[in-house]
Amino acid sequence: MHLAALALFQALPSNSDALWLWIALGTGVAALLAAFILAKIVLSADTGTLEMQAISNAIREGAEAFLARQYKTIGILAVVLAFIVFFGYHASARTAPFALKTVISFLVGAVCSGLAGFTGMYVSIRANIRTASAARSSLNGALQTALRGGAVTGLVVVALSLIGVGALFLFFGGLEDPTHVVYQLVGFGFGASLVALFAQLGGGIYTKAADVGADLVGKVEAGIPEDDPRNPAVIADLVGDNVGDCAGRGADIFESTAAENVGAMILGAALYPVFGIKGILFPLIVHAINLIASIIGVAVVKTTDSEDPMRALNRGFYVTAVLALGGFAFAVYHMLNGPGVEPAYLLLCGVIGLITAFLFVWITQYYTESQYRPVQSIAEASLTGPATNIISGLAVGMETPAMPVIVISAALLLSYYFGVKGLAAVPDISDYAKGIYGTAIATMGMLSCAAYILAMDTFGPITDNAGGIIEMSNQPDSVRDKTDKLDSAGNTTKALTKGYAIGSASLAAFLLFSAYLEEVRSIVAAKVTAAGSAGFMPVGWSFTNINLAEIPVFVGALLGAMLTYLFSSLAIKAVGRTAQMVVKDVRDQFRENPGIMAGTSKPDYARCVSIVTGAALKEMVLPGCLAVGLPVAVGLIFRNFSSAYSAGSGIAVPTINGVPVNLGGASAVAGLLMVGTISGVLLAMLMNNGGGAWDNAKKWIETGQFGGKKSDAHKAAVVGDTVGDPFKDTAGPSLHVLIKLLATITLVLAPLFL
Amino acid sequence: MHLAALALFQALPSNSDALWLWIALGTGVAALLAAFILAKIVLSADTGTLEMQAISNAIREGAEAFLARQYKTIGILAVVLAFIVFFGYHASARTAPFALKTVISFLVGAVCSGLAGFTGMYVSIRANIRTASAARSSLNGALQTALRGGAVTGLVVVALSLIGVGALFLFFGGLEDPTHVVYQLVGFGFGASLVALFAQLGGGIYTKAADVGADLVGKVEAGIPEDDPRNPAVIADLVGDNVGDCAGRGADIFESTAAENVGAMILGAALYPVFGIKGILFPLIVHAINLIASIIGVAVVKTTDSEDPMRALNRGFYVTAVLALGGFAFAVYHMLNGPGVEPAYLLLCGVIGLITAFLFVWITQYYTESQYRPVQSIAEASLTGPATNIISGLAVGMETPAMPVIVISAALLLSYYFGVKGLAAVPDISDYAKGIYGTAIATMGMLSCAAYILAMDTFGPITDNAGGIIEMSNQPDSVRDKTDKLDSAGNTTKALTKGYAIGSASLAAFLLFSAYLEEVRSIVAAKVTAAGSAGFMPVGWSFTNINLAEIPVFVGALLGAMLTYLFSSLAIKAVGRTAQMVVKDVRDQFRENPGIMAGTSKPDYARCVSIVTGAALKEMVLPGCLAVGLPVAVGLIFRNFSSAYSAGSGIAVPTINGVPVNLGGASAVAGLLMVGTISGVLLAMLMNNGGGAWDNAKKWIETGQFGGKKSDAHKAAVVGDTVGDPFKDTAGPSLHVLIKLLATITLVLAPLFL
Repeated sequence: MHLAALALFQALPSNSDALWLWIALGTGVAALLAAFILAKIVLSADTGTLEMQAISNAIREGAEAFLARQYKTIGILAVVLAFIVFFGYHASARTAPFALKTVISFLVGAVCSGLAGFTGMYVSIRANIRTASAARSSLNGALQTALRGGAVTGLVVVALSLIGVGALFLFFGGLEDPTHVVYQLVGFGFGASLVALFAQLGGGIYTKAADVGADLVGKVEAGIPEDDPRNPAVIADLVGDNVGDCAGRGADIFESTAAENVGAMILGAALYPVFGIKGILFPLIVHAINLIASIIGVAVVKTTDSEDPMRALNRGFYVTAVLALGGFAFAVYHMLNGPGVEPAYLLLCGVIGLITAFLFVWITQYYTESQYRPVQSIAEASLTGPATNIISGLAVGMETPAMPVIVISAALLLSYYFGVKGLAAVPDISDYAKGIYGTAIATMGMLSCAAYILAMDTFGPITDNAGGIIEMSNQPDSVRDKTDKLDSAGNTTKALTKGYAIGSASLAAFLLFSAYLEEVRSIVAAKVTAAGSAGFMPVGWSFTNINLAEIPVFVGALLGAMLTYLFSSLAIKAVGRTAQMVVKDVRDQFRENPGIMAGTSKPDYARCVSIVTGAALKEMVLPGCLAVGLPVAVGLIFRNFSSAYSAGSGIAVPTINGVPVNLGGASAVAGLLMVGTISGVLLAMLMNNGGGAWDNAKKWIETGQFGGKKSDAHKAAVVGDTVGDPFKDTAGPSLHVLIKLLATITLVLAPLFL
Repeated sequence: MHLAALALFQALPSNSDALWLWIALGTGVAALLAAFILAKIVLSADTGTLEMQAISNAIREGAEAFLARQYKTIGILAVVLAFIVFFGYHASARTAPFALKTVISFLVGAVCSGLAGFTGMYVSIRANIRTASAARSSLNGALQTALRGGAVTGLVVVALSLIGVGALFLFFGGLEDPTHVVYQLVGFGFGASLVALFAQLGGGIYTKAADVGADLVGKVEAGIPEDDPRNPAVIADLVGDNVGDCAGRGADIFESTAAENVGAMILGAALYPVFGIKGILFPLIVHAINLIASIIGVAVVKTTDSEDPMRALNRGFYVTAVLALGGFAFAVYHMLNGPGVEPAYLLLCGVIGLITAFLFVWITQYYTESQYRPVQSIAEASLTGPATNIISGLAVGMETPAMPVIVISAALLLSYYFGVKGLAAVPDISDYAKGIYGTAIATMGMLSCAAYILAMDTFGPITDNAGGIIEMSNQPDSVRDKTDKLDSAGNTTKALTKGYAIGSASLAAFLLFSAYLEEVRSIVAAKVTAAGSAGFMPVGWSFTNINLAEIPVFVGALLGAMLTYLFSSLAIKAVGRTAQMVVKDVRDQFRENPGIMAGTSKPDYARCVSIVTGAALKEMVLPGCLAVGLPVAVGLIFRNFSSAYSAGSGIAVPTINGVPVNLGGASAVAGLLMVGTISGVLLAMLMNNGGGAWDNAKKWIETGQFGGKKSDAHKAAVVGDTVGDPFKDTAGPSLHVLIKLLATITLVLAPLFL
């Protein structure tokens, strides 16, 4: 710490550019402080009746026990991977000097991600009861409590990602040697992704196994309502909302901001001659703006008892978006300037990113809300039974990628185009690098209100839990009406943020590909330079040629697409197996203790929580290891025998002693990464939106349509909803994380593929 | 005809290579003759009782009416497209000279495909009653009748494809100028694909809409058994088996052999300096061998009343495979030779193709037969209701691409490797061209028993229909046992051939990509040559650079993957809408004529057939036009504004007046084609195998497992089976055709994208 302080001190006067870094870091720390204050406010609120507290405590204990065990498992896996990375880098004299720094940034990323998840959940599982208690007096109080609880997650996630990347950059000497230090940050993104993958997988399996298991044995077999305290799995179900939706999504967005920060900094380094260090620090400043805008956005949210809470949340979002846009413009004009730069075009790229975010949210609403055709068609198909409900839901799910793909395509083409235009007069930089930086700016624009979006997202499980606590503690109907309203808004925000998450993942994908290609170029250049006079580097060579017509790339692409299917299959099967264990335990408890159903004795909630915890953690290992293992295997295999497979496209390639540098491993991995991402994005959309549409078709029928509750149509719709659950809450969100993990793991391990 | 005969006569003495073409054409004609004799034998068989004939006639009339109306619709679409191609080619002076030849081969391809489909179905819908009648005396007679009926389809399809391609090659002057004429054949493949797409879509929608509609209103609402003559939709259901499975699959395999013949000939042209014209004619000879081997294979099939008919069919397949392999070796050693060629390696490529076919069939069996884990896991999941049945089936479906993708990857890598090795000593040809030719040989090896496979496939609907006729005409149980055995074998062969079809599609995909790239190269070369001294062509330049890191290629890839989802969604929704019309008509008939249910009067079968015919033909237009329109749109859009998007990978490119030839349109389309194919192959596997597994899980429960028929598990399994129906019989098979259509349409329209 002393050394760090010294470094900080020295950096300040010596470099005026360093001011931007200080602003970013300072804002990050301020945002943590704001989160702390928000948490204090939330925690000081009333905690309701003793009965409510008993339920809330059970949820809290279950969630904390799960998180503790999950982090232990992830910790072990992370340490193993840290060793692999360390020794992998040490296998070659060329990479050995970077081994320690990469491992350090990997571990810092993993720890920050874990910390962000833990803090967010710490507040959420305490905000739920306070929201429930506030709902007994006013809707506004409940709404504000829930949103502020959510905002703690949002701010901590974005601030820790900002501080982590910024601090590593500083301590690794980024202010002195920025263009090399950025590559040493890739470990941070990988650490974040690894934790996110297992957090989302484990949490996603937990939440849906508990939900499906509780419903199967409670609603279907025993005939008791949802959230009935006699169901031994009911607490596990409520715990699941926290560990899946809340901790999982937090880790997801943490890795998004981390990976995209690092990726954008690498691309900024490619434009170092134009913007200097400011181009590298730009992403950090955007997230500083994001934090400030989101804090203000959260602060202005206020509602009345009669208003739809969704309107209040949207007002906060609009305030955030306008402020973020203003800040973004400021940052573009002050940081992305230099001879020949036209910042107006670069700002336009950012605006394109923001518009893309809006369109994604709108499309998600169209496909998952009951007033539109898709959900209505599923509800109508329920009239002829579960089979037609399922067919119709799958057809809707398969339709959903169409519009988002067109939006993403347009966003990529336009932001690339404006990137080239904005830097047209800049010499010595290829059009390609300019265009790609345009797409990177668009991605940053899209992420410039991420903290508010995440606050809205975490609002979902808090209100869901609050509703459950009110339900189980027998509060009057007027209170229940309020929490129902909040719960319904929470369902909407959860669906919207899923749309936002996949939108940012697909737009960012290109940024991360480009960072990977740029990194491979830099490694090859270093290799050739090290060879001295034996090395030859063609003028202007860059590794921007991922040729699908080459067999290794095509095979990589096939395997990448296959990975997304197999990974989803494993995740879904894991839910099924874990749910069976829940069913078995609940049956056992009913049999062992007949007093439970009679209402004379309490079920053993903790036993059920413990069983599902153990099973979910066991089940997350296989799909997680597949996701980590396959790209590594492809890279290593093709590194060794791909020289036979060159398409010989006539490109002059770097050589050492006249032998071309073998790019087969790096190319095959690029094919896997790119086509795996395309396939993963589409599958995730199918699952998220299909699942959301099934859910809301059921809810729409429950409002009295097509026969209402207890009709045959409703029974059919319940089948669809159950099928959709592991889609939208386990496999779909895990695919988001998988996509980014592929990007970060290839960034970190690229040196091993060459 | 006179001119044709003259051309034949002149060709014969002038060129000894021409002998190979004559052998191919002669074998094709002989195979047609054999098919004619087989048809005679089948048609001369006994046609059973008057009651059976009444049912059979109703099926025949319905199927013929559908086919007539379908061909009218397809005819109109084909003529429209012929005009588009003609004027598209005439838009540029460069392509205008090929306009007429391309349109002619397009129309010949379309007509041959239609003819093959019609002939095959003509025999199938007559073989069904004869199979039923033969089953009254012996299983062997029934088996032979059904297989011979199927063999007519198999032989006609392969022979017409062979004759069509061979004759066009001859009449366009291929013996004189082979390397240019091969490009004029691309229209043949496109014509075949276009007919196949609509035949499979229309037939697939018809068959499943009739099936689902009949079941929903018959089994579920009215409570009458399947194939009950009181159900007005029962004939439509039986008609569907013919128009979907039989005509649809026939068109599918016709286009496969056509497209792959043309693609392999184009690649052969690239190796013209090595093999001469023999390398171009090799694919035709392979199909001649295929025909001879398959005729013998069909002839040896013989069974006894006690044997499992599947064993007899497999014996025939083994005979065919061994003969095909022998013939293949003969062809390789006699045709693919020249200085420096090592034919043993090339034969190895063919063997790899055959092994791939076996592995695909085995994997399909593993995922769809009841003795293995996947089907059993679905059956077991049915115990907890339809939701878990569906989840489990989808998880199995998503798992299915894993093994086939690994097999295909290995087949591509190995056949490429052996292709390079086999031609290692050949000078002046790039390793890439050698390797790609190796993969083409593997594809031909895989297709070298296509005619027998197709005979087994068409065996399926014939026995299905025979069973239906026996069921409806109240035959004794002993007869029903025989047709049940055949029906069960037919279900297996249908599943296996679907595995074979998707395997050949994925292996052939690379062949067709390469043909496209080769064609683009040849167009660019012609363009540069035409520019005279203003043109510059880098030495050894080839269009083998489909760079995913370029935005247009990546956007094309995104859109290609999206197309497969949207297309599937449209196909599935079409089934749903058409099935609703069936349900409505059946309900109307029951209401209008109460005598139907009482058994006192006959329902109006024809009305239902006519309604579903009209609806299916209307519904096939939108997905079909999407499949045709999207690649054209991408090609034309990116042709015009893609120059801003070059990755500038340092490749020397062809220029005219110093301006690089704009390859953006051709590249974007290549991205769409390749990634669309990958996505389509995986989705098709998910749907085919998932659907097959659901079907057999239901059947397994019906054998008494998990409570047997009428248990809750069975009801849940019926839901899964119904969901799987449009997957495996409409969307999945239509995706096979879509993949090949993408390949052929891009081949034909490539000149417009440049």
